[in-house]
Amino acid sequence: MAVLQTPPSSVGRTTTERVLLYTEEDPLVLASGRELGPVEVAYETYGKLSPQRDNVVFVCHALTGDAHAAGYRDDASKPGWWDNLIGPGKPLDTDRFFVVCPNLLGGCQGTTGPLSTNPATGKPYGLDFPLLQMSDFVTVHRRLLEHLGIERLHAAVGGSLGGMQVLQWTLDAPSQIDNAVVVAASSRLTAQNIAFSAVAREAIMRDPDFQSGEYVGTDRAPHLGLSIARMMAHITYLSEEAMSEKFGRRLQGDEPPGNRMGLGVDFQVESYLNHQGSVFLDRFDALSYLYLTRSMDYFDVFADPGASARIASGGTRFLVLSFDTDWRFDTTHSRRIVRTLEHAGASVTFREIRSAWGHDSFLLVVPGYHETVSAFLNADGRDLRSGTPVHVPGRPDLDEVAQLVPVGSRVLDIGCGDGDLLAHLVHEHGCSGTGVEIDPAAVLTAIRRGVPVIEVDLDEQLDEFADNAYDVVVMSQTLQATRRPADVLREISRVGRRCIVSVPNFGLWRHRFGLLLRGRMPVSRELPHPWHETPNIHLSTLADLEALFEHLGLVVERRILLDEKAAPMRSSRAANLRAGAAVYVLSR
Amino acid sequence: MAVLQTPPSSVGRTTTERVLLYTEEDPLVLASGRELGPVEVAYETYGKLSPQRDNVVFVCHALTGDAHAAGYRDDASKPGWWDNLIGPGKPLDTDRFFVVCPNLLGGCQGTTGPLSTNPATGKPYGLDFPLLQMSDFVTVHRRLLEHLGIERLHAAVGGSLGGMQVLQWTLDAPSQIDNAVVVAASSRLTAQNIAFSAVAREAIMRDPDFQSGEYVGTDRAPHLGLSIARMMAHITYLSEEAMSEKFGRRLQGDEPPGNRMGLGVDFQVESYLNHQGSVFLDRFDALSYLYLTRSMDYFDVFADPGASARIASGGTRFLVLSFDTDWRFDTTHSRRIVRTLEHAGASVTFREIRSAWGHDSFLLVVPGYHETVSAFLNADGRDLRSGTPVHVPGRPDLDEVAQLVPVGSRVLDIGCGDGDLLAHLVHEHGCSGTGVEIDPAAVLTAIRRGVPVIEVDLDEQLDEFADNAYDVVVMSQTLQATRRPADVLREISRVGRRCIVSVPNFGLWRHRFGLLLRGRMPVSRELPHPWHETPNIHLSTLADLEALFEHLGLVVERRILLDEKAAPMRSSRAANLRAGAAVYVLSR
Repeated sequence: MAVLQTPPSSVGRTTTERVLLYTEEDPLVLASGRELGPVEVAYETYGKLSPQRDNVVFVCHALTGDAHAAGYRDDASKPGWWDNLIGPGKPLDTDRFFVVCPNLLGGCQGTTGPLSTNPATGKPYGLDFPLLQMSDFVTVHRRLLEHLGIERLHAAVGGSLGGMQVLQWTLDAPSQIDNAVVVAASSRLTAQNIAFSAVAREAIMRDPDFQSGEYVGTDRAPHLGLSIARMMAHITYLSEEAMSEKFGRRLQGDEPPGNRMGLGVDFQVESYLNHQGSVFLDRFDALSYLYLTRSMDYFDVFADPGASARIASGGTRFLVLSFDTDWRFDTTHSRRIVRTLEHAGASVTFREIRSAWGHDSFLLVVPGYHETVSAFLNADGRDLRSGTPVHVPGRPDLDEVAQLVPVGSRVLDIGCGDGDLLAHLVHEHGCSGTGVEIDPAAVLTAIRRGVPVIEVDLDEQLDEFADNAYDVVVMSQTLQATRRPADVLREISRVGRRCIVSVPNFGLWRHRFGLLLRGRMPVSRELPHPWHETPNIHLSTLADLEALFEHLGLVVERRILLDEKAAPMRSSRAANLRAGAAVYVLSR
Repeated sequence: MAVLQTPPSSVGRTTTERVLLYTEEDPLVLASGRELGPVEVAYETYGKLSPQRDNVVFVCHALTGDAHAAGYRDDASKPGWWDNLIGPGKPLDTDRFFVVCPNLLGGCQGTTGPLSTNPATGKPYGLDFPLLQMSDFVTVHRRLLEHLGIERLHAAVGGSLGGMQVLQWTLDAPSQIDNAVVVAASSRLTAQNIAFSAVAREAIMRDPDFQSGEYVGTDRAPHLGLSIARMMAHITYLSEEAMSEKFGRRLQGDEPPGNRMGLGVDFQVESYLNHQGSVFLDRFDALSYLYLTRSMDYFDVFADPGASARIASGGTRFLVLSFDTDWRFDTTHSRRIVRTLEHAGASVTFREIRSAWGHDSFLLVVPGYHETVSAFLNADGRDLRSGTPVHVPGRPDLDEVAQLVPVGSRVLDIGCGDGDLLAHLVHEHGCSGTGVEIDPAAVLTAIRRGVPVIEVDLDEQLDEFADNAYDVVVMSQTLQATRRPADVLREISRVGRRCIVSVPNFGLWRHRFGLLLRGRMPVSRELPHPWHETPNIHLSTLADLEALFEHLGLVVERRILLDEKAAPMRSSRAANLRAGAAVYVLSR
């Protein structure tokens, strides 16, 4: 490996470096078997490499990104495309992390791509440039790390195509990445995704100025096609909502519509797209656009049945994020990634972040987004190593539940709150596990303390979890708030070898007599909400519940009755009348 | 008005007719004030005009449609684009209706458009063709009717741009249309809608072969631009789901991907789009595409504050339909139309039809879609004119409710089932009204008997209805099944001057004692479901409910207690203990 320049210092970059990673004699061997050389890579670094070289965060950029992820220290005129994420005190904290970001192979911002000189002809490759697969990007990234003397990554982070590179990496080198952050990405494109890219490529390749890709050096380039491609792509990057908010139906200028209705650029949204199409021509190349979009089309990282197991084998912790208005890669894409990783037994945290801004959100500051990345990357597991009380307001049964979980179990805690029970189980019982929660503040706290948390709708999405994926599924004070308790019980008993379910008892004598004598729906410690606002939409007595267990073929292995103060009852006499709540251990 | 050919016979057409509706001397005056002449219109008719001329159904076509909506009787080689809807025994039953379908102004299938000869120059108009507004299409449609000797329409029917014409028509000639069917349409495009059209137009106009619109007679035409436009449009016509089902990620041919990965047409979806782009060139013109899409961009039928009131003044009955996977004009567009019409006091029926096929669904046979159109167009109101019993299983309280509705009231019946109560009220009490229902079979029955029905989610969408829009809102046996009963009560008391609310009583002695003695959640005539499956997720006693009324500032004007057999109770002693259900009349 020839080094063009001096190796990087261990301080923040102030320029883009370029390094020759492969030569014509020692070429890059692509996944397709084709060889490519020389290969030069442009990259930047920010922050300081620690003496142990254990603080490296690698940033993979998206389709039209480049190596300049963060602004130069002394030159405010060239902001980086991810300045809001990278810098001192930011989620990719350059006071703590050493951040590396290269331009990817096939790009047009300093790294070898279709516009580079083909040594065989002395002319630009054009369409002779080889097609690239996601693995090829990763191979080059890894060679760059080698060049930098780095063996492991604290984290790899990427949005969109960047996230796809991160995913591929965890497959190609399962133990090189400790934390993988995959934002607004996909494990494989849908027909619609491919369709948009296909039309963009047609626009470019049918442009007469494309000249079969040999436009370099002529006075023409496929500007028509590339700007149409970019305009169309921009529609898919913004949510409908964001576009409406940003432009609505407002016209350019001030004249009333009647005076100026025409076929030109009348509406503000038209002006915006035209501008986007036009400025893109200055910074991007049509051939790179063709090649990189095609790599995305063909990407199907989990197609190999062994893939997910390989990924999981590396012990990488995954953070998968989607944005609710992203319709380029909507949440279904992220859920597929989560499901596959989760089924493989990997440690996965997933959130769908609310944002008005669609796919573009991964580049923006959106409430909850950076906080989650920061919590994930900075989770030090301190809470997990110290004794954690499990006396949580609203979950008075957790101490009882905790005692029922065998040492070393893999636990799914449904309705995990901020992770108290899991933290306790990890510390005291040597367990591992995952939480399910929807309260945003609780989720963030759980992530911060190192508990993997997955946001799912209990009534719809428990199929994220595989059959018998967990030794124990805990569901505390949640069943009565689901829309279809029987289906939820079926699901959790499919996922867990054992289930520990705790419920309030509507049959408690005070509820019964309250209803009988006062003629009012009960409000109590266990049922604190008025009838019309309660989340407890399927209340039952213990007798009702036990009948349902039986109907579903669930065996009650153990039952612990709690009195009205959540203390275990000594006797089970008249349980249905006396218990304020109960904890059941169930098996199929 | 000069007639080019003999007036149409009163039997089904077997050819496309053309008629000169305006001449250079007697030109069409456009909404913009510009004049256009001559104007010739191509149209077809199917079925037989009744002697009373009262069976006319006018079909408005969408962006790239034409006059050939149904196939010729004796020529199977030329199917019509709406053959599945039009024909003997079909929803637009040509045994019953006389169906008229013209090519619209600005089109390129026989009606005057940008390719027609400009009398001022002797050459095609090209970009000198005037810009058109939705009203201009309607003006020409109406002139065609005049030519055919038709004054009123039993119905006007259109999908997408066709539905937009129908909407405009009800504004421009409020009493000409008895029934308006508006499918998968919009009252105004969003920024995203405009953006897609804008990129399509840019692709056409930037195509060097466009030659400023003067390509006719040259050997070039903007085929690149027009086919890119069409490919892109096709993406928006299909749902993501449909595209995935139809093409998935399947490749063309049989070779394994590794052998053939390239930048060409590898995936089946690419082949499909290429084909669509290419066949379109044979049947459509780029200039018409520019003009017609621009008319859609500028369309904003309710922008005039007086518009909806004008529409409602005509007494037209509206059927608005959307498809749940349509993302070109999603259900939000239809809901906006429904809300505006409903606020204006018009008779509106609305359904969101489930379909996998996106915007294209309006051209396809989708379960529930044609049935609804047929039910609406063939509603004879017979049930409304005869006495209708209101003893409905599951709604034993309806007889009581009916007696509480004043004669001549405008009634909103929430949870209207198949419209029994409304049918009864219309017949017996001279009322008018609208139903709200979500059960598809019930909705269809209600529509068939002439009851306007709107599908809304009670917990989210009662804002479809304006303040004080109804004299009486009836909500029978439904409140306890809503997610937020207090919010629903607030909403219905905003919409109705009076509300009639009936509920089951959880305080019934049998429920109480059942719970007390048996320790099980009650199952009874009023509460027939087991606890874990019940839709009644917010049960209350009458005492609870009355406390909530008071809290919300609702005055109980009357209370009727029903015993366990739904018969009125003579005494209100121990009501909370003895009543199986109650009917309340509430006012603010």
